[in-house]
Amino acid sequence: MTCIHDDPEVFATTALAGFASVYARNVRPVTGGVLRSTATPEGKVAVVVGGGSGHYPAFAGFVGPGLADAAVAGDVFASPSAHSVAHVTRLAHRGGGILLGFGKYAGDVMNFGLAAERLQSEGIDVRILPVTDDVASGPADKPELRRGVAGDLVVFKIVGAAAEAGLNLDEVERVGIKANARTVTFGVAFTGCTLPGAKQPLFTVPTQRMGIGLGIHGEPGISEDNVLPAKELAALLVNKLLSERPANCSGRVAVVLNGLGCTKYEELFVLWVGIEAVLKQAGLTLVQPEVGEFVTSLDMAGCSLTITWLDEELEKFWCAPADTPVMRRGAIIPTEPAAPISEASQEITSFPAATAASQANGKCIAGLIAEIADVMRTAENDLGRIDALAGDGDHGMGMTRGSAAAAEAARKAVAAGAGAASVLAVAGDAWADRAGGTSGALWGLALRTWSTALSDQREVTPQDVAKGAQASLDAVKRLGRAKIGDKTLVDSFEPFVVTLSEQIAKGVALNAAWNEAARVSTAAAEQTAQLTPKLGRARSHTTRSLGHPDAGAVSLAMCARTVGAILDRP
Amino acid sequence: MTCIHDDPEVFATTALAGFASVYARNVRPVTGGVLRSTATPEGKVAVVVGGGSGHYPAFAGFVGPGLADAAVAGDVFASPSAHSVAHVTRLAHRGGGILLGFGKYAGDVMNFGLAAERLQSEGIDVRILPVTDDVASGPADKPELRRGVAGDLVVFKIVGAAAEAGLNLDEVERVGIKANARTVTFGVAFTGCTLPGAKQPLFTVPTQRMGIGLGIHGEPGISEDNVLPAKELAALLVNKLLSERPANCSGRVAVVLNGLGCTKYEELFVLWVGIEAVLKQAGLTLVQPEVGEFVTSLDMAGCSLTITWLDEELEKFWCAPADTPVMRRGAIIPTEPAAPISEASQEITSFPAATAASQANGKCIAGLIAEIADVMRTAENDLGRIDALAGDGDHGMGMTRGSAAAAEAARKAVAAGAGAASVLAVAGDAWADRAGGTSGALWGLALRTWSTALSDQREVTPQDVAKGAQASLDAVKRLGRAKIGDKTLVDSFEPFVVTLSEQIAKGVALNAAWNEAARVSTAAAEQTAQLTPKLGRARSHTTRSLGHPDAGAVSLAMCARTVGAILDRP
Repeated sequence: MTCIHDDPEVFATTALAGFASVYARNVRPVTGGVLRSTATPEGKVAVVVGGGSGHYPAFAGFVGPGLADAAVAGDVFASPSAHSVAHVTRLAHRGGGILLGFGKYAGDVMNFGLAAERLQSEGIDVRILPVTDDVASGPADKPELRRGVAGDLVVFKIVGAAAEAGLNLDEVERVGIKANARTVTFGVAFTGCTLPGAKQPLFTVPTQRMGIGLGIHGEPGISEDNVLPAKELAALLVNKLLSERPANCSGRVAVVLNGLGCTKYEELFVLWVGIEAVLKQAGLTLVQPEVGEFVTSLDMAGCSLTITWLDEELEKFWCAPADTPVMRRGAIIPTEPAAPISEASQEITSFPAATAASQANGKCIAGLIAEIADVMRTAENDLGRIDALAGDGDHGMGMTRGSAAAAEAARKAVAAGAGAASVLAVAGDAWADRAGGTSGALWGLALRTWSTALSDQREVTPQDVAKGAQASLDAVKRLGRAKIGDKTLVDSFEPFVVTLSEQIAKGVALNAAWNEAARVSTAAAEQTAQLTPKLGRARSHTTRSLGHPDAGAVSLAMCARTVGAILDRP
Repeated sequence: MTCIHDDPEVFATTALAGFASVYARNVRPVTGGVLRSTATPEGKVAVVVGGGSGHYPAFAGFVGPGLADAAVAGDVFASPSAHSVAHVTRLAHRGGGILLGFGKYAGDVMNFGLAAERLQSEGIDVRILPVTDDVASGPADKPELRRGVAGDLVVFKIVGAAAEAGLNLDEVERVGIKANARTVTFGVAFTGCTLPGAKQPLFTVPTQRMGIGLGIHGEPGISEDNVLPAKELAALLVNKLLSERPANCSGRVAVVLNGLGCTKYEELFVLWVGIEAVLKQAGLTLVQPEVGEFVTSLDMAGCSLTITWLDEELEKFWCAPADTPVMRRGAIIPTEPAAPISEASQEITSFPAATAASQANGKCIAGLIAEIADVMRTAENDLGRIDALAGDGDHGMGMTRGSAAAAEAARKAVAAGAGAASVLAVAGDAWADRAGGTSGALWGLALRTWSTALSDQREVTPQDVAKGAQASLDAVKRLGRAKIGDKTLVDSFEPFVVTLSEQIAKGVALNAAWNEAARVSTAAAEQTAQLTPKLGRARSHTTRSLGHPDAGAVSLAMCARTVGAILDRP
């Protein structure tokens, strides 16, 4: 959805005005586009690029030293008029002739073509360079039928650098034609996009499906499939492009992984790990790859992969410095590589010697934590839902990760012969380390503190358990700065500890005492539905969580019940 | 929707690995985060920032000369563990002490706090700097209750520059506390976000509504309202922040307009135009503003505005060079400002002298175009829908814009006394210029070419009309390189011209001839539903448009019928 706009009629021109204002260091606005705001030498070939709007940073974001001299911007998804192209180009001309770069679409071919004719008739030497990198839009033996997509970035970067290096128009054109011929792109889309002011998306992709080869204006692709896991998607994209590997290829490639708008950077980085692996497996050397948003489609979700088969000349221009709003190459601050570092392995593999009795207790503790991990995995979504009402919804995920890591660490410690105190301590550390977040810090501290009341030498007594529980509660209250009534896990933890201590002091057996404490804790957790989170402590200070219990209090009671049920087993 | 992932458990760590690989020039990966890959001097204060993942470029994208020395990354939306923070921080330490920067959330306060305690106990001097810029999360008089959002960028940029300048830890901390105290942020969200692997979004915002003050993990905001036009949204955001303008304020401000993920750059630039206007109206001077994505929330749609009230010291550090993956300040290539240019006004205001008869014809032509513009406006959505089946869906928009501009230009020409040929010519130019795209180029050329058969001196004859139509068709076929059967507007234009010419040659009256031609043209437009678009010419080479007529052929026939109906009027 395009949510921010005034009159959709002026969306593209207003966006361009805002862009030019923010990037005044690089560009200045003229009717229909932007020019560099910095001086260029007389006689330099001017590289003018352009096309429809809605593809930012294409094309205005590519204007600056080392890349384009000017960009022409049409309305959203519409080619600029020949009049606009001619106007902006005239202003950019420095006497060295013009290279007009654009993606190959019917409207752009017409308007840039008409503009070129008009400028030629005025005595300006103009060449057009339609980019045709999209392999989904035409067969390999008819590249002239193909559309231009994210390959624009590589082709324009290379011709921009060639022009900056002082090559004449014939040479810049030759380099551009070569760069385009050696550039291929293949993409997928997960959702459609919505034109500013439109109530409905321009097109849709069914949920959990992806359009393969779908164009940047929603032009139909070559097929549709289920959304693939990242590694398989990486292989799909790379293999399609490798099938067009030219014969005279050095094995050095420029690579661009481009997001279409709503596919986020972190997703692109995840995909990149797979893409890099497949490309390297194919024996290719990646030269200054780029991962980001370069040719977008409003709010479309999807991505494309571009490869340019470099030769020495193309590599030189691909790597040359550039200083534009979005595409930047080269250092601002001189640097030297840092000295190597070595990270010591962080896994603890040896433990203090333990008695057989304590080892047996340790094994029992590891078993309890393993069952807690099972319960948390089952409850993950429910806990996440409760948490999302007041916070960030990560509670279920954090508890699942933390308890699973704790169970694994405890299992390994038992296998290494650790006693009860050591097993509980490493479990706590693993929980904190893997879960992170609030619950990770609190649970990690709780278990580690609890372990200080145990020993690797003697058998665990009910009094040890009660003492550990009290120490644990105190530590949690200190770290979380929470007290009863703040709508946190303290609300179910404190009643649990109080009841457990009372029962054990009375001489009640551990299993019965624990289960009574778990019962009281569960009731208290449910009561948190009546509470308002304390301003600032919780992530919210609204009343949205009113009527819902606190996820941390609920999960703690759940763990207490799980342990109680096991202690009751014969 | 987060569409690209493998096992959601390893989403954050895989994303970080991919990021570190792409940006090896800036960073190197370590367990739990990234360090600069470039050397820093012994004794420099190390700035270590971090928090949950899912907010890229926060925080890893801020590592590099002039900004952070390292970043610690937790799981998605979860604070990193104290263990991770301590580990990364130890590796970043250069003997000058550590400033730990993070947004103020319960989990981060705990884990960074625990890590700081641990490092202090190891003899490393550590200060923590929790950022508290989000005005929606606490009252102005209790900033310590506030969360940290996009203000992170400004505060970290400033402390990073202070550390780079060689200030000692006490001084870097002082500058950081001041920067945080003078930084405020206010935001809105239009949609929720989806955790990797989750089937449902973490939360939702009703369509056409926005959550005001909603947090970057979906924490509830302070209210909900209908989505506002861009200008009103700009005023809402700015005015809230201006209400906290400190007394000792120079009027110079750092400003960051931040997108949350799915709100695209062009929307941010549109909003920026409004924001800049309101800020300037308030007498403020904007210092190196930033518009882009700096602290995101996976695929959430929304934005936030950050203002930092600068003093001389803060401004110096805000503007200092920085060279990180995302935040870059300073020039790569030395430049000088370009010479000023002046754009000549492009509106034609005087026309060749015309006879009264030709002026009357011109007025009639202007009237016809005005009615065409009305019809196109009404048909805009239908034409867009037909076009979206095979192309980019911009046909309705292009026809509406073009015909409206043509009608306006024709009206002005009539008012200036232009004759028939001039009226039609300027209408064609205006159509092409405003509509852009394929249809703009073709219609502009069609009308301008048609005008060459008319005159500003003598009255228009039916033969002139027929001759103009033929010239117009020839020009359109040449520019579009299309012939009958290619599924373009030629499919309805050519039968129109052929019939019109035949009828007029037979002596049929213009209105009857035109209407017969329009009838034939309409039938031919409908017949285009049977055609497959020619490979490469149309933007698609699939069969998705099979069974649907061509939008260009349909709109041409529609215009022909409109004119026919008017000619039939008494």
